[in-house]
Amino acid sequence: MTQPQSSDEYRRLRVALLGAGAVGSQVAGLLLRHADELADRAGAALELAGIAVRDVDAPRDVDLPRELFTTDAESLIVGSDIVIELMGGIEPARENLLLALNSGADVVTANKALLATHGTELFEAADQVGASVYYEAAAAGAIPIIRPLRDSLAGDRVERIMGIVNGTTNYILDRMDSEGADFAEVLADAQRLGYAEADPTADVEGFDAAQKAALLASLAFHTAVPLDAVHREGISEITPAMIEEARAAGFVIKLLAVCERLDVDGAESISVRVYPALVSRTHPLASVHAANNAVFVEAEAAGSLMFYGAGAGGIQTASAVLGDVVSAARRHIAGGVGVGESTRANLPIVPIGHVITRYQITLEVNDQPGVLAAVAGILSDGGVSVATVVQTVEGDSTARLIIGTHRAAEQALSDTVERLAASDVVERVVSVLRVEGE
Amino acid sequence: MTQPQSSDEYRRLRVALLGAGAVGSQVAGLLLRHADELADRAGAALELAGIAVRDVDAPRDVDLPRELFTTDAESLIVGSDIVIELMGGIEPARENLLLALNSGADVVTANKALLATHGTELFEAADQVGASVYYEAAAAGAIPIIRPLRDSLAGDRVERIMGIVNGTTNYILDRMDSEGADFAEVLADAQRLGYAEADPTADVEGFDAAQKAALLASLAFHTAVPLDAVHREGISEITPAMIEEARAAGFVIKLLAVCERLDVDGAESISVRVYPALVSRTHPLASVHAANNAVFVEAEAAGSLMFYGAGAGGIQTASAVLGDVVSAARRHIAGGVGVGESTRANLPIVPIGHVITRYQITLEVNDQPGVLAAVAGILSDGGVSVATVVQTVEGDSTARLIIGTHRAAEQALSDTVERLAASDVVERVVSVLRVEGE
Repeated sequence: MTQPQSSDEYRRLRVALLGAGAVGSQVAGLLLRHADELADRAGAALELAGIAVRDVDAPRDVDLPRELFTTDAESLIVGSDIVIELMGGIEPARENLLLALNSGADVVTANKALLATHGTELFEAADQVGASVYYEAAAAGAIPIIRPLRDSLAGDRVERIMGIVNGTTNYILDRMDSEGADFAEVLADAQRLGYAEADPTADVEGFDAAQKAALLASLAFHTAVPLDAVHREGISEITPAMIEEARAAGFVIKLLAVCERLDVDGAESISVRVYPALVSRTHPLASVHAANNAVFVEAEAAGSLMFYGAGAGGIQTASAVLGDVVSAARRHIAGGVGVGESTRANLPIVPIGHVITRYQITLEVNDQPGVLAAVAGILSDGGVSVATVVQTVEGDSTARLIIGTHRAAEQALSDTVERLAASDVVERVVSVLRVEGE
Repeated sequence: MTQPQSSDEYRRLRVALLGAGAVGSQVAGLLLRHADELADRAGAALELAGIAVRDVDAPRDVDLPRELFTTDAESLIVGSDIVIELMGGIEPARENLLLALNSGADVVTANKALLATHGTELFEAADQVGASVYYEAAAAGAIPIIRPLRDSLAGDRVERIMGIVNGTTNYILDRMDSEGADFAEVLADAQRLGYAEADPTADVEGFDAAQKAALLASLAFHTAVPLDAVHREGISEITPAMIEEARAAGFVIKLLAVCERLDVDGAESISVRVYPALVSRTHPLASVHAANNAVFVEAEAAGSLMFYGAGAGGIQTASAVLGDVVSAARRHIAGGVGVGESTRANLPIVPIGHVITRYQITLEVNDQPGVLAAVAGILSDGGVSVATVVQTVEGDSTARLIIGTHRAAEQALSDTVERLAASDVVERVVSVLRVEGE
């Protein structure tokens, strides 16, 4: 094979960068610093044609030549071979990417919000012109999970994905677990340290994880998964007491994105959900600490796989973006049409009620004879079978019951919890958590 | 996008399978069983044209139609679009794959021995005709590691790979660690259970791991790595006492494939080596149990990543093979040239002497005044700095010294161990192990 020695000998590809925030500025820096090496790997010289930003004079994480910056995204996009979108948000990111695809560029994006809401529109636009949309950085930061799902496991049947895909919430839950600290206290600390945003809603209420769950489920099950089909619960209600109780039972609480293949009345279906769940301390996901991410995949033939690494961070995410840029360049040079979205299975997505899990229910009850029998009766009437019960005395007249159920349909479990809450013998439903990964 | 509903509406691709052993028979079974699903994913109907074997009547793990079998590999190969080679060994696998490439087929192989010895020849043949060689199954079984290295990390700089890439040796070391059992005893058990072959040399002496290390290093460092450039040591000398001592010091012994970027006298170089090493029990690789595999990757931008899963097994490896078949089919349909081997960096591969590690040295010494000073003198003269010393009394006149060194060049360390062995005060060098992953 002839091996050009410097990037001068390669065909030049114009690369447009949209956005120069934490990730964008690192991508630009690496494109410039490693130009020769990237050219060798891509088989093309990647020329950073410009960086479109709102404010040319804003401070950046990386020192970049001022002449690269422009506020005119459209002129930059037209005539580029590869467009990297790292602006975030829906508009003008969506319009810019459609313009890029219609101008014949391949696009690279880390914009999970855009993909989860307008992904199909983008994939169809790419399909029309034979271009590709690359988005390895949109889920789980630097961890290669998109290609393994799209390509490596393309000949297998994914049965279940369980992912810790949000670094902020894992950081908070991990510190609550190791220090016995309060949610609000750790959140404030995470904000000070830059692990959580001033408005933490997107992270702590599971919106960010739900977007990633939609992307992962789409790939794994070859099905278009709209964001509103993802059941979502956050971690703001998790208390130190719940974490302590979980520990006593051998569990740790993790915010999980679960994507699962189900059989509902004989019809193949999928469920996509995000919620804090109890995970056995012996499960590989239990040892994912701090702001790290991990995705655990169970496939029919491959068995259990786990992908672990940094889920966020400017430079880490830039690694995933640049891998996509090299892939896009190789495709651009090689010719042929790009890999489109694979949604040919289009399985029905079932509501949470059809999901089968175990519950761990903590109740405060009147400490008097017959209470356990009454509670057991309500569970049994609801079709919920009890696996474990732990009773502790709380005060003069109050006892605490921690009930681990056997596996049952979510609907039966939640209906039963409602009846328990309404019952005379139950003073308070302290917590209800699902168990995953068994 | 138009979505054909059955494989009848797709272009047909002829798939030839060479070999029907543990992996091959599972691949054939899955190709037949999941034909419609695979067609939807590949965008092409994958027609299993035939299976070339030495003996048509040999028993198989999977029940397959007898009319698919043939002993005439050449006729099967010519006219096929995709050729899957799962025969193993060098010949006739090499000749068959060259014939396939020269006939215009894309090829999929799990043959690490062939790739590690004749990889460049195959990649060049593919390059000539614009075809691709896919080999996800050749390293770490079902774990997607080839695509992450080749594509996802193509824009990053891999600094180090540490992999547990041989299931047999991990099974043996894990049982020795958890049961305190003897190497020979566990090996015999592993052979009975099918985890180790009748002739276990390829596994226990590190030859299999060395082939995989060569493949991983080639990809990670864009450098052709010949098998004889891989330093190799096996696990047959590991004793229960060594494992016990490792445990006492907070380590576990793992057979590691280490691929590392080094600076040797200002020149960028790489080292590729396989040996049993001490790994801290807090390192993610320490919790890889039984016959599982894991590959830990450190990259400049991405930071630390880990890929974990089943490293072997017929059905698991078949998953990786089928992922490659789908990729090959997509490329075949899309057109364009395939991804070639990326060896444009071609960094020098340095011998083991240049590697910088820590040693853990266990000595039996005469238990008399001045011995520790003499040993310390030899270490100091050799330029080896001591981090920890533990002395225990063994018998009437013998003491045991466990010396943890600071980081030093392998050459200085091994020379020093030789001088220790030759010294009057040292009765026996009990063991010397390197520490990795710090």
